Amino acid sequence: MTDQRMLTGDRPTGKLHLGHYVGSIANRVKLQHQYETWLILADLHMLTTKNARSDIDEISGNARQMVLDSLAAGIEPERATFYLQSAIPEIGELNTLFQNLITVPRLERIPSLKDMASDASKEEMPYGLLGYPVLQAADILCVKANVVPVGKDNHAHVEVTREIARRFNHLYGETFPVPELVTSEVSTLVGTDGHAKASKSLGNVIYLADSAEDVRKKVAAMYTDPNRVRADVPGTVEGNPVFIYHDTFNDDPDQVADLKERYQAGTVGDVEVKDKLAAAINRFLDPIRERRAAFEAQPGLVDQIIVEGTERTRREVQQVVFEVRKAMGLAGAYNQLRRKAERAQKKAAAES
Amino acid sequence: MTDQRMLTGDRPTGKLHLGHYVGSIANRVKLQHQYETWLILADLHMLTTKNARSDIDEISGNARQMVLDSLAAGIEPERATFYLQSAIPEIGELNTLFQNLITVPRLERIPSLKDMASDASKEEMPYGLLGYPVLQAADILCVKANVVPVGKDNHAHVEVTREIARRFNHLYGETFPVPELVTSEVSTLVGTDGHAKASKSLGNVIYLADSAEDVRKKVAAMYTDPNRVRADVPGTVEGNPVFIYHDTFNDDPDQVADLKERYQAGTVGDVEVKDKLAAAINRFLDPIRERRAAFEAQPGLVDQIIVEGTERTRREVQQVVFEVRKAMGLAGAYNQLRRKAERAQKKAAAES
Repeated sequence: MTDQRMLTGDRPTGKLHLGHYVGSIANRVKLQHQYETWLILADLHMLTTKNARSDIDEISGNARQMVLDSLAAGIEPERATFYLQSAIPEIGELNTLFQNLITVPRLERIPSLKDMASDASKEEMPYGLLGYPVLQAADILCVKANVVPVGKDNHAHVEVTREIARRFNHLYGETFPVPELVTSEVSTLVGTDGHAKASKSLGNVIYLADSAEDVRKKVAAMYTDPNRVRADVPGTVEGNPVFIYHDTFNDDPDQVADLKERYQAGTVGDVEVKDKLAAAINRFLDPIRERRAAFEAQPGLVDQIIVEGTERTRREVQQVVFEVRKAMGLAGAYNQLRRKAERAQKKAAAES
Repeated sequence: MTDQRMLTGDRPTGKLHLGHYVGSIANRVKLQHQYETWLILADLHMLTTKNARSDIDEISGNARQMVLDSLAAGIEPERATFYLQSAIPEIGELNTLFQNLITVPRLERIPSLKDMASDASKEEMPYGLLGYPVLQAADILCVKANVVPVGKDNHAHVEVTREIARRFNHLYGETFPVPELVTSEVSTLVGTDGHAKASKSLGNVIYLADSAEDVRKKVAAMYTDPNRVRADVPGTVEGNPVFIYHDTFNDDPDQVADLKERYQAGTVGDVEVKDKLAAAINRFLDPIRERRAAFEAQPGLVDQIIVEGTERTRREVQQVVFEVRKAMGLAGAYNQLRRKAERAQKKAAAES
């Protein structure tokens, strides 16, 4: 454990699924032992694409759910600080102060934004969506994070944070660490329907909160090799969702090797392969379920973890914003006026 | 005097000159009797184009100078509230919350920005400069201004404020007045060098703070009809800076008419025309000088006016941001978590 700080997080979209686990949570559970860990519940980022009142009304429920899932998955409240972004107004302030440290063309060149810009929605792109990476710089630098774990798709975003940190330091003196990107090796998980990515909106996911019975049903309905019409037809293992899940979640590699061999030889039925997968996923989820039950047995505990984390973070951020204003000279500008005003008042009081 | 609020202001660039007086100050002096008046010292806007530490270090001096000039020109501290934008962090917060209420193409279509975009600096345009009108919406709506006086060149900017107010009200319920634009009739003042616009950077201005002797020297050097090589050559009055200044500042219209007639007939020397102009401008500036002297006789008074105005404004803005967070549902999101956390804590305390 170093004194390095790591920041990462998600929009509060609700329940986490196995795709989230593989894509980020597992990595966070590991990294929390290495770094002082901050996990942002990025609701202001949600507003760049979903800003109806009905969306905002779901934030607290979704944040609670997401934190509960994270804790159940092994994030330890003693190691990680959760914070609700919108409850720290100073992040909005920092965002405004950072806006002149990066150019429009630089933001437009970010690949994920270029994709959005090339489709029909360009005409509809909110200003705040173009500035997504600037707000992200505020999220990261507001706690002076040194390390940001990134998947390959948000690499370019975090590069903007590094540029803003460097630019700020250059203009106003050494203030921010330039955060290092830690690329995680884990990748995206295929959906239960064979779709390239498990995604809540596609309905092809197994939630961390699913019951054993839910898991069995979802696995029984999983997409496999479509050419394998009977158990005695040799099947393909590569790219087959059922075997990808076996490889990812089954803690018994001998069993997986045996199933693969028999599958390719046409000597095992889909039912057996899937039953064993369901059992494996349930073995994987059982400790998560136990931890969830323990947290749920203390009503309000998750809320307390979020609120205390947010308050602790806010105190940190206020200190950082104080430094930022001082470094930029904005604190000095107002203080000069204030000191002169105070002197005048004292003098007037002494004379009367 | 209605209970309507007016907001206007400038970047704190320093001393005011006659061009400022004609372009905006005279209008403000008049309008302060009609509206509750708020004058922003827009230093965060300055950062969109000038954000070096050395620029920021000039803010307090420039703000003090500008407010002193405004007061000398007739703005009454009992009628108008000055505030330093950067000293109200909630404006940055509002700016962040407003960023998703307007699209990038909408901002790109603003004429003054289109001009900038078409020149070589497009590649250099800071993100915050594209969003200038969003921050302006925060400036205006943070005190719920009903009225914004505009010149023809910032019409389009303030139209964005109206759109943001309407969009916010539509999404989150009636919160903001949609401010009315009051177009002022006054126009730009020609420079003393004949250049279309009096501008500090061109060095072709007479400052409100200039001494009588400064005024005489600057007027003596003013550009006039270049074809008039001797006093007996008939001269042109139209578009001639000396006569534009006579028309604008000379309180003796008979004298101006007489000078114009003799100038066109070639029966008056430049020296006489200019001496009378200098005298007229000095008559115009004398009451301004007297008011300035009165304010300067109380050291710290201007600082006090800015600080008290900023603090008063900040209290107003905090109230507005409170309403904004409530209307959007962001206050509710965090409060729900907080209430559950508090209930849990109370219960735990009662049980132990």
